[in-house]
Amino acid sequence: MRKTTFFTVGPSELYFTAEMHLKEALRRQIPSMSHRGTAFQSLYRHAAGHLRELLNLPESYYILFLSSGTEAWERILQSCVEKRSCHLVNGAFSKRFAHTAKELCLETELIEAPDGSCCEPKSMLLSNDSELIALTYNETSTGAMQPASDIADLRKAFQDTLLAVDVVSATPYLTFDVEQVDSLFFSVQKGFGLPAGLGVWIVNERCLSKAVKKQEKEMSLGSYHSLPGLIEKAEGYETPETPNVLGIYLLGKIAEEMNLKGAAQIRKETEQKAAILYQAIEDCAYLAPFVKEKKWRSKTTLVAELQDVAYHKPLMDYLSSQHLEVSSGYGKYKDQHIRIANFPAHSKEQVERLADALLAFKKVEV
Amino acid sequence: MRKTTFFTVGPSELYFTAEMHLKEALRRQIPSMSHRGTAFQSLYRHAAGHLRELLNLPESYYILFLSSGTEAWERILQSCVEKRSCHLVNGAFSKRFAHTAKELCLETELIEAPDGSCCEPKSMLLSNDSELIALTYNETSTGAMQPASDIADLRKAFQDTLLAVDVVSATPYLTFDVEQVDSLFFSVQKGFGLPAGLGVWIVNERCLSKAVKKQEKEMSLGSYHSLPGLIEKAEGYETPETPNVLGIYLLGKIAEEMNLKGAAQIRKETEQKAAILYQAIEDCAYLAPFVKEKKWRSKTTLVAELQDVAYHKPLMDYLSSQHLEVSSGYGKYKDQHIRIANFPAHSKEQVERLADALLAFKKVEV
Repeated sequence: MRKTTFFTVGPSELYFTAEMHLKEALRRQIPSMSHRGTAFQSLYRHAAGHLRELLNLPESYYILFLSSGTEAWERILQSCVEKRSCHLVNGAFSKRFAHTAKELCLETELIEAPDGSCCEPKSMLLSNDSELIALTYNETSTGAMQPASDIADLRKAFQDTLLAVDVVSATPYLTFDVEQVDSLFFSVQKGFGLPAGLGVWIVNERCLSKAVKKQEKEMSLGSYHSLPGLIEKAEGYETPETPNVLGIYLLGKIAEEMNLKGAAQIRKETEQKAAILYQAIEDCAYLAPFVKEKKWRSKTTLVAELQDVAYHKPLMDYLSSQHLEVSSGYGKYKDQHIRIANFPAHSKEQVERLADALLAFKKVEV
Repeated sequence: MRKTTFFTVGPSELYFTAEMHLKEALRRQIPSMSHRGTAFQSLYRHAAGHLRELLNLPESYYILFLSSGTEAWERILQSCVEKRSCHLVNGAFSKRFAHTAKELCLETELIEAPDGSCCEPKSMLLSNDSELIALTYNETSTGAMQPASDIADLRKAFQDTLLAVDVVSATPYLTFDVEQVDSLFFSVQKGFGLPAGLGVWIVNERCLSKAVKKQEKEMSLGSYHSLPGLIEKAEGYETPETPNVLGIYLLGKIAEEMNLKGAAQIRKETEQKAAILYQAIEDCAYLAPFVKEKKWRSKTTLVAELQDVAYHKPLMDYLSSQHLEVSSGYGKYKDQHIRIANFPAHSKEQVERLADALLAFKKVEV
């Protein structure tokens, strides 16, 4: 059976060596390994070390394991905010981050931008009451990516406020300096091309201090995944619970291979492949980039709007017949958009094949 | 390289078909499958259906996916308790369940029993203020298992209180009637012989009603894994976040195979294998069952105490040389105990090999 190439925005295509590493993990009996022993500690240390190198993270940042990016929304708000968080909202996922704060009974301040755009930090008049600014670097629902310069501006403007950045559908493609943010988090089924079920939460000392202060006021930080609890275990390369050991092993292996290529090369290839795809989208009369401003166009999850919703099903069917899968639009855009992942797992050849298929469909149907 | 047989109490030996199913999952590209589509819904339905059959769960119970048993401690307290929970504590894990309640700023009532025993429900004079009674069916730290009749007695005595049972290191070996409890939960790296990173949380309508009442009072139930939120998604065979799709697929496959054998047969085999192991422990002059009362001896995680801590390292080394791994004692018992898992993944032949090795060590060393 011919395998499908998944350009879905996550879960997505497995990284080209993921299957090999999974089989090697079985040979090495990694799934039977105790999470309380030196073998697991080595595995955590290996994964964290390679992530630190890949993301250019200073030693002072902690690398913690959760079960999803969704969990990270909860944990950062639960541990680092006592009363009020501010959210830059420009699509469904940044909105869910804000909704998480409401569910935790926090006050929220929303700065909203229309779908397909990004909030402009320069125009923000934030009150000083928010303890944390939540920003979604890459809004998977609309394909809008916040420019690095905006993050730098935000940092300058709000030096005393924690800055937490959702990098779920971008990592390892990060264009901003991670030292400018206090926390970032992602899950492995997107840019790392791995099976879902593992999230990575990165925090600095400022986050920890804030959590300790909250704890000293006898406010709850949740339980087993409170930030101080996670860090206490992480310092010995352990986790509070039995974690997704296999996922951590695989992440370490993929991060190690990505380091052989180098983060700069991955960024360059990602941009080249994105250019190929945006060119195809613009060359297809029936498609157009949903994000109109080029500076906001995501390089990792590209969203194209269809001239006519009637094209949606025939296009998806045609791509499936070519063993290619892309994602439908998100929510109300289900039939109006297609979303295309452009992760390190997607080779230039696969991207060209998708671009050709998008153009071929045009020739057939329009 | 000869493979080790893991009798560790979890992560433990993989179920004998787990590797085959994992490779089949790769062939079928399960890790790239969207969690928002009919294929995933089928997979959830399949796993839940087979778990329902295996555990003899009425249709009215919801089957929900979390990331660990540890998470289940948090979620059930967060969703189903407003003020006060009561905990039967007889070891480190039941104590951590109680500690979770404290971390969530709940009042806790503790009924404690010495290590190696179980709380006697008949002697309990619980106040009526507790909204939930938390019981650990199998205390992995000490190898004490609560008799089924105690659970029946508790149910009769406290009909209006939610009864939540931690079945982490026992499932699918359950001797009590699940309809007597309102919630139970486990993780898959123990009795199901799967890689860690998936928890299963089972609840009835009473738990949901309690959660809805708490929500109506505008108290926080956490966020993405609040009970009403989980159930809303589960009714459409989905999860709030991108879950461990591969884990759910594997769990469905293993539960399906266990159903071919049947829960009654699994219980019988578990008891036979436990008898072989306890016999060996009693026949070894240097070992004795830690749990003195036979009625409390766990059938799934057997704990043996060493006559002398000096035997600990030589014994572990000897077993390793025989490609057998058991767990050390928990916490302060690290060098005083060994803990042996007896899960469905462990064949009678493997159990006999371990029993022989325990006896052979005696001949060599004493």
